[in-house]
Parts: sequence; C-alpha cells; structure tokens
Amino acid sequence: MTRIDRRNADQLRRFKITKYFQKYPAGSVLIETGNTKVICAATIQDGVPSFLRGSGTGWLNAEYSLLPSATLTRSPREASRGRQNGRTQEIQRLIGRCLRSVMDFKALGERTVIIDCDVIQADGGTRTASITGAFVALAEALATIYDPKKPFPLKDFMAAISVGISKDNEPILDLCYEEDSTAIADMNIVMTGEGHFVEIQGTGEKQPFTHEQFSKMLAYAQKGIDELISYQKDILGNDLVWKIGRIP
Amino acid sequence: MTRIDRRNADQLRRFKITKYFQKYPAGSVLIETGNTKVICAATIQDGVPSFLRGSGTGWLNAEYSLLPSATLTRSPREASRGRQNGRTQEIQRLIGRCLRSVMDFKALGERTVIIDCDVIQADGGTRTASITGAFVALAEALATIYDPKKPFPLKDFMAAISVGISKDNEPILDLCYEEDSTAIADMNIVMTGEGHFVEIQGTGEKQPFTHEQFSKMLAYAQKGIDELISYQKDILGNDLVWKIGRIP
Amino acid sequence: MTRIDRRNADQLRRFKITKYFQKYPAGSVLIETGNTKVICAATIQDGVPSFLRGSGTGWLNAEYSLLPSATLTRSPREASRGRQNGRTQEIQRLIGRCLRSVMDFKALGERTVIIDCDVIQADGGTRTASITGAFVALAEALATIYDPKKPFPLKDFMAAISVGISKDNEPILDLCYEEDSTAIADMNIVMTGEGHFVEIQGTGEKQPFTHEQFSKMLAYAQKGIDELISYQKDILGNDLVWKIGRIP
Amino acid sequence: MTRIDRRNADQLRRFKITKYFQKYPAGSVLIETGNTKVICAATIQDGVPSFLRGSGTGWLNAEYSLLPSATLTRSPREASRGRQNGRTQEIQRLIGRCLRSVMDFKALGERTVIIDCDVIQADGGTRTASITGAFVALAEALATIYDPKKPFPLKDFMAAISVGISKDNEPILDLCYEEDSTAIADMNIVMTGEGHFVEIQGTGEKQPFTHEQFSKMLAYAQKGIDELISYQKDILGNDLVWKIGRIP
Amino acid sequence: MTRIDRRNADQLRRFKITKYFQKYPAGSVLIETGNTKVICAATIQDGVPSFLRGSGTGWLNAEYSLLPSATLTRSPREASRGRQNGRTQEIQRLIGRCLRSVMDFKALGERTVIIDCDVIQADGGTRTASITGAFVALAEALATIYDPKKPFPLKDFMAAISVGISKDNEPILDLCYEEDSTAIADMNIVMTGEGHFVEIQGTGEKQPFTHEQFSKMLAYAQKGIDELISYQKDILGNDLVWKIGRIP
Amino acid sequence: MTRIDRRNADQLRRFKITKYFQKYPAGSVLIETGNTKVICAATIQDGVPSFLRGSGTGWLNAEYSLLPSATLTRSPREASRGRQNGRTQEIQRLIGRCLRSVMDFKALGERTVIIDCDVIQADGGTRTASITGAFVALAEALATIYDPKKPFPLKDFMAAISVGISKDNEPILDLCYEEDSTAIADMNIVMTGEGHFVEIQGTGEKQPFTHEQFSKMLAYAQKGIDELISYQKDILGNDLVWKIGRIP
Repeated sequence: MTRIDRRNADQLRRFKITKYFQKYPAGSVLIETGNTKVICAATIQDGVPSFLRGSGTGWLNAEYSLLPSATLTRSPREASRGRQNGRTQEIQRLIGRCLRSVMDFKALGERTVIIDCDVIQADGGTRTASITGAFVALAEALATIYDPKKPFPLKDFMAAISVGISKDNEPILDLCYEEDSTAIADMNIVMTGEGHFVEIQGTGEKQPFTHEQFSKMLAYAQKGIDELISYQKDILGNDLVWKIGRIP
Repeated sequence: MTRIDRRNADQLRRFKITKYFQKYPAGSVLIETGNTKVICAATIQDGVPSFLRGSGTGWLNAEYSLLPSATLTRSPREASRGRQNGRTQEIQRLIGRCLRSVMDFKALGERTVIIDCDVIQADGGTRTASITGAFVALAEALATIYDPKKPFPLKDFMAAISVGISKDNEPILDLCYEEDSTAIADMNIVMTGEGHFVEIQGTGEKQPFTHEQFSKMLAYAQKGIDELISYQKDILGNDLVWKIGRIP
Repeated sequence: MTRIDRRNADQLRRFKITKYFQKYPAGSVLIETGNTKVICAATIQDGVPSFLRGSGTGWLNAEYSLLPSATLTRSPREASRGRQNGRTQEIQRLIGRCLRSVMDFKALGERTVIIDCDVIQADGGTRTASITGAFVALAEALATIYDPKKPFPLKDFMAAISVGISKDNEPILDLCYEEDSTAIADMNIVMTGEGHFVEIQGTGEKQPFTHEQFSKMLAYAQKGIDELISYQKDILGNDLVWKIGRIP
Repeated sequence: MTRIDRRNADQLRRFKITKYFQKYPAGSVLIETGNTKVICAATIQDGVPSFLRGSGTGWLNAEYSLLPSATLTRSPREASRGRQNGRTQEIQRLIGRCLRSVMDFKALGERTVIIDCDVIQADGGTRTASITGAFVALAEALATIYDPKKPFPLKDFMAAISVGISKDNEPILDLCYEEDSTAIADMNIVMTGEGHFVEIQGTGEKQPFTHEQFSKMLAYAQKGIDELISYQKDILGNDLVWKIGRIP
Repeated sequence: MTRIDRRNADQLRRFKITKYFQKYPAGSVLIETGNTKVICAATIQDGVPSFLRGSGTGWLNAEYSLLPSATLTRSPREASRGRQNGRTQEIQRLIGRCLRSVMDFKALGERTVIIDCDVIQADGGTRTASITGAFVALAEALATIYDPKKPFPLKDFMAAISVGISKDNEPILDLCYEEDSTAIADMNIVMTGEGHFVEIQGTGEKQPFTHEQFSKMLAYAQKGIDELISYQKDILGNDLVWKIGRIP
Repeated sequence: MTRIDRRNADQLRRFKITKYFQKYPAGSVLIETGNTKVICAATIQDGVPSFLRGSGTGWLNAEYSLLPSATLTRSPREASRGRQNGRTQEIQRLIGRCLRSVMDFKALGERTVIIDCDVIQADGGTRTASITGAFVALAEALATIYDPKKPFPLKDFMAAISVGISKDNEPILDLCYEEDSTAIADMNIVMTGEGHFVEIQGTGEKQPFTHEQFSKMLAYAQKGIDELISYQKDILGNDLVWKIGRIP
C-alpha cells in the first residue's frame, strides 16, 4: 500500500500551530495539518449558564464552522440556511465535551470559556485539528487570568487524531480528505497527556471492522497523539507546561 | 458494589420486543428495556435522495424523538421550539449510520427506508434500544418487499448496548438513567451478528478512562449484544433469520 | 346506509382508557377508540406565565403531536421541518381552551398544568380523543396536589366527540378516518357533565349543511358524550368523582 | 342591558364595503364594520399545488395578518418574530375553508386564488369581516376571468358574523372588541345565500353555555348574515349577482 | 425626454398626507404620492433596550412591510416564509437611522418609539415616502407626551425623496415604479429642514454614473425635499412647527 | 487634529492583498488593511437563478460574515442564532450589487459567481475591504474560464473605501474601528477605474452633514480609490489588466 502523499501508515501529516493569530480573543491560534487549516480562538466571559449560577464553578462551550470556501466544492453557508446542520452540531458538542474533561471548573470560577473553531481550509481531520489547536488557544487564554493562589484551570494536556482502515484494508493514521472519503472505517481518538482516553469514536459505515483492526488503529492513534502533545508543550513554553495539572 | 436494581455488573435489564405495534408502517415494534420504551417504525418509500437518483441503489434515514412526557422532568417539545437540538441530531445520525452499515442498498433498489424511533419512556439507553428495536422493524418492513431473485437487503444482524464506569469506578453493562447520570465514563457499542464493530463511542467527560477499563467495557458489551441478537433471531423467526445475509 | 365497520349511525367505536401509562408525569393515560390511540399526559409545574404572575391564579396549556408513523402514509416530523403546522396549532389551542373552561384556577394557585397529547395511531377523531383522555390525565394529576381545604381545581366533567354527514347524506357519530375523509360535513362537540356546550366546531367544506342536519348531529353528539363521561367516572373512581365540582 | 354603543342586541354595527381599493390585485375591497377595517384582496395565479396537478380543478388559499398598528396596544410583527402564531394560522385556515365551500373548482380550472386579508384596524370581528369582504373581492376577481361557456366559479353567496353571550348573560350580535373581551361565550357563524351553514364555531372558554342560549345566538346570526348578503348583492351589481350559482 | 406621466424632470408626483388615519397609535398617517400609499404609525412605549437602561435617554426603531397585495405581482408574505428578506431589513434600518438623527433622546427620556411603515400600494419610492410620512406621525405622537419644561424631542424637520438617471440618460426626480425599474442609476436622499444631509444612497447597478450627473441629481433632490418639508409644516400646524427644534 | 495612528487625514492604512490564499476556490485572496483582514473567495458554478434561465446571461451573488472571534468583543455566531442580521444582509447586498455593476453577464454566459467575504479580523472598513479584495478574487476566478473569442466578463476595475467626519469635525479617509465608532458621519464610496460612481452611501446618524463636508469626503475617497486600483493592477499583472474592459 502506498498512501497518496507517500506517508507511512503510522505517519502524521506536517503540522504547525501559530499562536497570537488574531488580535482580539484571549487565545487564538492557527493550526495547519497538511492542507487543513483551522483558526481556534478562546474567549473568556464573566458569568455562567443558569444551571451553574451560584455554584462557584465555570463552564466551557465550543462552536465550529466551515467557511463556505474551505471545501473542495463550496458548502452552503449555515447562517443563510438558518440552521446548523447535524454534522456541525455533533462536532461542536464533541469539541466542548473533550475540552471540559480536562478543565478544573472550580479553579475557573463563575466564568464561561467560548471556543470558536473556524475551518478556513478542509482536507480531512478538521475536528481533531480543532481539538488539538483549541487546547493551545485555551491554555493561552487561561494564562491571562491566572491566579497563582489557585490551581491552573487545566488539569492535563489533550490532543486528538483520526485513524482509519484504508480502502486496501490497512490501518492508517491521520487521514486526508481523499483517504477519508474512501476509507471503510474511521475513528477519532482523543487522549490526555497521561495517556488516558477522553473520547473514542469509531464507525464502520461502509463495513464493520474487527477487534484486530481496532487494536492496531488504537496503537497508531496513541503514537500520533504523543507527537502532538509533545509539540503543544514546545510551543506553549515551559512556564505554561509547568502550570498545567499542578496544584499550588 | 451493588447496582441500584441489584443486577450483576454484566447483566442486561429485562427486555422485550413487541412486533406489529402500529397498524400503518411496514414494520413497527415496541422495545422495552427496563423502564425505557421506544416505538421503532420502518417505512419504505419509492425514490431516493437526489445524490443517488439513477444509481439503482437505495438509502435509509432515521429520525429520533422523545415525547415530552417521556422524561423524569418534562422536556420541551422540539417542534414548538422550532428546531431539533444537537443531542437529537447526533442520535438520529448514529441510528441511520449504523443501520446503513448492514444494508445491501443494491438489493433494495431505488427506495428509501425511513426509521422513526419515538421514545415514550426514557430511563437510560434510549439510543441503543432504538438501534436494537429499529433493526427488527427494518427486517419486518423489508420482508414485505422481499424479492426471492435478489439478496435480502440486510447483510447481517445488529444490536447495540451501553456500558460505562460507575461512580464506584467499576465497569457496568446497560446503564439505567440514574447510573448514567453519575457514571464517570460511558460508551455505546454497536456490533453485528458476526461480532464485528459498527460503532464505538466512548466518552470520559467527567474523567478520562484507562485502557484496562476500556477492555473490560468492550467485553461486557459483547456479552450483552450476543444476548440481544439471539433474542432478535427468536422473535423474527427462522424464515427471516435464514434470509438475512444469504445470497440467492 | 351501512357503516364501514357495521356500527349504527349513533354508535361509538369501542373505546378504552388505560391509566398510569407512563411512569414520570403526574397523570398519564392511553386512550384507544377504534384504531385511534393517544397518550395523554398531565404535568404540573410551579409558576405561571408572566401575565398571571402575582394574581394567585393558575394556567393550563396543551400541546399535540402525531408520531410520523401514526398515519396511513407517514407524516413528516414537525421538529425537522422547523415549525408546527396550522392544523397542529389549531388542535392544541382547542384542547387547551376546552380544559381551561372546567378548571378552577383560583383553587389551583400559581401553578401551570401542561397537557401533552401524542397520537401514536390515527384513525380519525384524534382531537376529540385527546380531550376525553386528557381530562382523565388531568384529574389524576390534580389529585396528586389535592388540598382538602380548597375546592378541587376541576369544576365539572368534560368529554368530546365528532359527528358528521356521511357521503350518503346521513348524520353519523364518531367518524373513523375513512368516513371522515369522505364526509360532506363534520363537527367536533365538547360538552360538560352538566350537558352544557364548551365548544361546537362544524364545517361544511365540501357542502354547506342544513339546520335539520345540524340538530340531528347535536343529538348524536350528546348521546356519545354521555357514554364517555359515564366511562370517565367509572375509571376515575368514586373518590375523585365525588371531589370534582364540590366545594369544601 | 345596554350595549356600549347603544345598539340593540340583534343589531349589526354600521358597515361598508369599498370596491377597487387597491390598484394591482384582480379584486380588492376595504370592508369597514364599526371601527374594524380590513383590506381584502384576491389574486388569481396560473397553476395549482402539486396534489391537484393534472386534475383540471383549481384551488384557493387565504392569508391573514394584523398590521402591528391595528390594535389597541401594538402587536409584534410576525415577520420579525419569524413565524405566524397559532391564532393567525387558525384564522387563515378558516377563511380559506369557508371560501372553498362555495367555489366550483372545476369551473375555475387549474388556477389558484390567493386571498389576502390585512387588518388595518381591529375592533372585534376581524375574521368574520375578512370572510364577508373577501367574498366580494373574490367575486370581482373571478369576473375578470369569466368564461360564458362555463359556470361562474362561485356557487352561492356567503357572509359571516359573530354572536356571543354578554357579561350580563344576554345573547348579542356582532361584538366589538370590548364586548368580545368580556363575553362569557362567543361564536362565529358562516352561512350561504341559501341559508345553509358553512361553519359554526362556538366556544365557552369562560363558561359553558346552554342549548337555549345557543339557539338564540343562531337566530341572531342568521338575521345579521341576511343583511350582509343583501348588501353584498347591492354592491356587486345585478350582472354579477345573476352569474353566481347559475349554470350556463 | 417625456416622462411616462408627463411630469417635468424635476417635478414631484402629487402627494398628500392624511393625519389620524388609525384610531389606536399615538401618531398615524396615510401618505400618498402618486400611486404609492403607505400607512405610517408611531407608538411610544415605556422602557428602552438593555444597552440604554439607566442612561436616561430614549430610542427609536422602525419596521417596514409591504402588503402582499401592494405590488404589481403579488409578493409572498414574509411572515409565512419565516423571515424578513434583505431588502426589508435594509429599508427599516434606513428609516430608523434617519429618524434617530433628528431626535433628542435626552428630551425623550427612557422611552422607545416604534415606527411602523406598512405599504398598501407600491408604485416606487416607498422607502422615501415612509420616511416623509413617518416624520409626521412621529411629530404627532411626540406631541401627546410633550413636557413644556423640556425641549421637544425633535430637533429639526426631515423628508426624503428619490432621484435617478432615466433610461434616456437624463436626471429625474421622484421615480415611479416603471421609471425606477428601467433607470440606470438611482439615489435616495434624506435631508433636514436646515438643508443638511442625513443620508445619501446612490447606486449605479446597471451603469456607473458621473460626477456631473450626481450633482444634478442632488440639486433636484434638494428642490423636492424643500416642497415636502414645506407641506409637512402646513399639515402639522404652527403650534407643532414652533416647537420642533426650540429649546424651552 | 491627530489621528489615532498618526496618519494624515487623507492617508490610507497600510494594505496588502495576498493571492491564492485558499486551495479550492477558483479565486481566493486575503486582503489586509490596517488590522482588518478579510478572506475573499470567488466560486464559479454552472447554471443561473430561475429568473435568468434560458437568457444566456449569468449572475453574481455575494455572502459576508464575521468570524465570532474577529471583533473586539466576541460576536454571536449567526448560524447558531438561526438568521443573518440586518447589517450582514445589507453588506452582502451591497457587495453583490457593486460587483455586478462591472460584470459583463453576456460574456459570462449561464454561470453564477458566488463571492464569499469572511472577515477574520475587524478593525473598521470591512465592507469596503471586502469589495476591493473580492474584485481581485473575481478577476482571478474569471481568468480560469477565459474564452479569447468573447470579451473578458469584467468591464472595468473597481475599489471601495470609507470616509467620514471625525469627532473633531474633520473629514478623514479610511476610518479604523475607533475612528468609526466616534465619527459624526461616515460614507462608503465605490468607484470604477474610469472614475465613475458605483455606490455612494453616506449617513449622518449622529449629526447631519453639510454640502461642503460632503465634497471634501468625496475628494478624499477618490484619492484613496486611485491608490487601491493602482495596487490591484500591480498584483493582477499586465496580462489580466490588459483583458479587463477590452473587447476581442
């Protein structure tokens, strides 16, 4: 089997995270992985949804969108159609759920973080790139309100990657759009710096997959996530890395 | 650890599928599992969505809804709010995707199956009960258009179940609502009669989970799904069981 | 004239009300009349709409929906279309208006009752069955908050039935779907235990009708409603029957 | 009992219909009854809804709206709220149903009539004024496409009026807003030139009403409708009066 | 060049404003200009939008709508389509912005004025007629809350008119629909009694226009607006004219 | 007067257009002007809206959106709110109207161009930057379908800029957000390479402005637009510059 871009089966695409991409949000990065490019921004607002008011704990929500011009054939704009489609809602629920799993909301206090993931170019893996990039934007944003007398509101690192079974029936890591559209199964895996699972979503819509294929995909994912978290630590810098997960 | 209803960790709730529950749809069942009750109906319509027109292959879509009176505290009606929420869309996309994975759409021809899963009482596990019940309604509906010169349009059996990590940190099978709302992780597993995976969705929103916990949950799920598929075969009867997956 | 199911012109279909149909709402019944089946649930919530706040009086609202699988040919789901259609809104306004006419809102205090009528099989007469069934669910729900120092919040019994002019130009009682779709006029009548009118809705869309036909339809309706209220009393039991309309 | 404007119990308010009120629609009138003013327009379009295509028969639809400035306290604009409320939908369904009952759709052929009733001042009775006025606009519009070889597409005259039980427990005809808001029951009656019923809608939301009250209201309504139809004939002129209901 | 209705290039259509057109709003006029007819109503409500609460200053909002029957071919009703289109929103933003520019919101205090412009016949220039008519309705409404110890809440007069370049490449004033639909450029000009610009909106969608054409259009507009403001003063009467723009 | 960024009154901010910004659309640029950054993409699709079908002429539509993270305080996402607000619709109507004014739709044939302007950072002037940038994306896109036997479908160059009256009552060119929010009047001017006006939109919401101020703003705008069009020519290159406006 040769992959379309000559990568090894367990090799990530080239990736890069650019910090301070936008001027106004508390945290903003551009994540690029292959031809996929996502702007991830984190905004911190005072106050929480009504079900948390008075609890002393915070919240985090995520929104996700594709620019119409981001895809191979132009996608209709959701705001003109008047509603977000099911795929969009599913992805933004996933991003929010994952990031919440590593948040310490007591330490955040009654504030709400809003994560915006806006895809400006889509070549597969936009939801996993969103999570990996949003984690960095989130860390940067939380640093702006850091209170040394409290724990830093992030308990651990987190990154995400896709794996799949190629049309040649081989497990592969980090699928680009063309691989994804012909894959017979695909999974998204989200893991922490400790190596624990936050989310496992595997689907064999074209064809169910076996236990053995599943194990191999998990192994590839773990390798990819290790590389991504190592990179996140590099660009966040020692000072922030040291804070994440520590208790004062 | 003692479960709220004294079940063993790997024990299903009492379940039952009643066929011919409604008069008009081609297939209609009531599935009850513990206090969860879902009406699953399958309707077959001529024609397919535009992206398949002229292809000679069929399609399947699923819709899911909770009666407002189905839940512990009444849920607002989505039709009055003017849109389906993200959870609803995510569930109906899941149900559709799973059932499509065992369909032979060439054998179906240019027809569309619509699956309606309407929950009349919700005590946890409504999405997995929907899949398990909808499979039976689908098989019944397809039998009404069976053409002995073609393969039966279902390639394999399929059922779904939830597993999770209880608040006492123990893996458990088939969570009821109270267990689900306190679980630190939960998964939905969908498998075929052949024992292959169709869908694995695990999330550790409250707390990430380990490889070991994950493996134990998978084992419990497999046991539960075996029981469910065995029951599906019983109530569908030999004639239909024999047809599913055979090629004429 | 022979009716499709050999009933007499002034004969009701077989009907039955099952109490405690759902586990969570304060009142929940399944009403079956011929092949029509409706789940009627009553939920009591603290608080009232803003126009009644501070008035010491309560309120009641009703919602109505058809399962997509309830009808001869599948009906599109209103939540996916993003709005309730005119027929749905008209029916739920009717149900709410009728039930409010026998409520003692002073006795209820600042609480809101929500009535949910969800049709799981539709063979004509769903709106009248909804009213007749919802009355029982309402009485059951109000019994859960009964305060012996106040009047019971229901002032009288109430039931509803349809009448029409058949395609053979004969008045008939309690039309099934096939009769309804060919009728040249049809009416819905709602009356109290005292024999007074709560609602009269007659329409001769296919052909206007005469005074004489109108009088005969009224007489049939009265006979049908007497039977229904008598049955309501049976299943509610002496204790509740004694409370309705009494002042302590 | 003295009425607020000193009318007799069975007396209509002063009413007037102005033809040719707008320049563009095929038929357009302003109907004034007391302080209630409604613009009724009829537009004829080629083609019919899909369920009638190829049948050779036509269709009629009605739409109803209140100007925000038409009511005592300003009503929010439905177009800004993004949906028509239940009352609006119920009224426009009523107007359409009534007008259809006197149409000869075979004679109309595959055309659709759209009736627009826009209330510019609302002082009670807007739905009945809409029907009475729309009938005249409809007759005018149909005259523009009259084909002497076919029946005129209107089979009979039609008008509508409200009746009610005043707060003093007296039946009254043609309620103004203040009477309507305190009435203990109210009805809308729609009748044809032949004296047959097209629609009877009576509701006793505040208090159920008796057979005797009901009969008296019917008698008042009949008297009022006779006057209205007589006026319609005057202003439509002999030529059109002669055509309505005749067969060539 | 001869205009369709034989007017001179710089001549307004016949216009007329009728005060007290509706019974309920604080100010209500009918403005007619040629065949264009618009009902303009002004309602004053206590309270302001949240961004002004506690500021002691008021606000003004405008809404605009066309009756479906107002146009040459019937326009679909926005409330049935579920949203206002872009043209409607643009016009109502324009009307609100212009009227706000001559308001003294400190003098108004924490109240909100709502302007409703409902077009009952459209023959070009509906947005400029709306502004010119709404100004009069607004002045009438503000007079009902006049407090002699404060400035009158209107600082100056204001009127609006359209100009354009005809298909014969000639500047013309006050275009009717037929002129507008063939014009190669058109502008809407809003000016105050002092002769200052409030809004200039010119567009050359069919063909860009030159500086010279632009200057000539401005001159025509100024002439037309002078006539309109002079008429506004006549019908408002000396008492109100004297108040507008004076400080007590 | 000193401007916030020390520019002269008639000086543009630093600007830059990056071509080939996205991979998939036929034309895609990033335009930066000061801190304002807009992605402008042009997509060409076969077919036209129904009102042009069979006419042999094409069409162009524009859509505009702000990323939520683009503004000083985060803006709610329009797709989650379910509708585009009035400002968005007004801007996208403006962009479309302007670009259409320089298109030769006969030369385009029955194709539709869709322009997407997505603002990733907003510091004033987003609508004028969108027009200036979209022109370049449009030219690039049209080059991909160039047919030497027909005229190039663009008849002239076009750019846009804002001008205003500062809070110190001085005319200024190219307002940044802070200047814009305190300006007493502001205008957007769109002009062609020939120096003709495509659009003039001036508004004095805070305070009406005089003829003299207006003339000075026009002069500044012309100077700014000359610079922008000169830059457009540089980056499009001689080959394309030569084609625009020529007839083969």
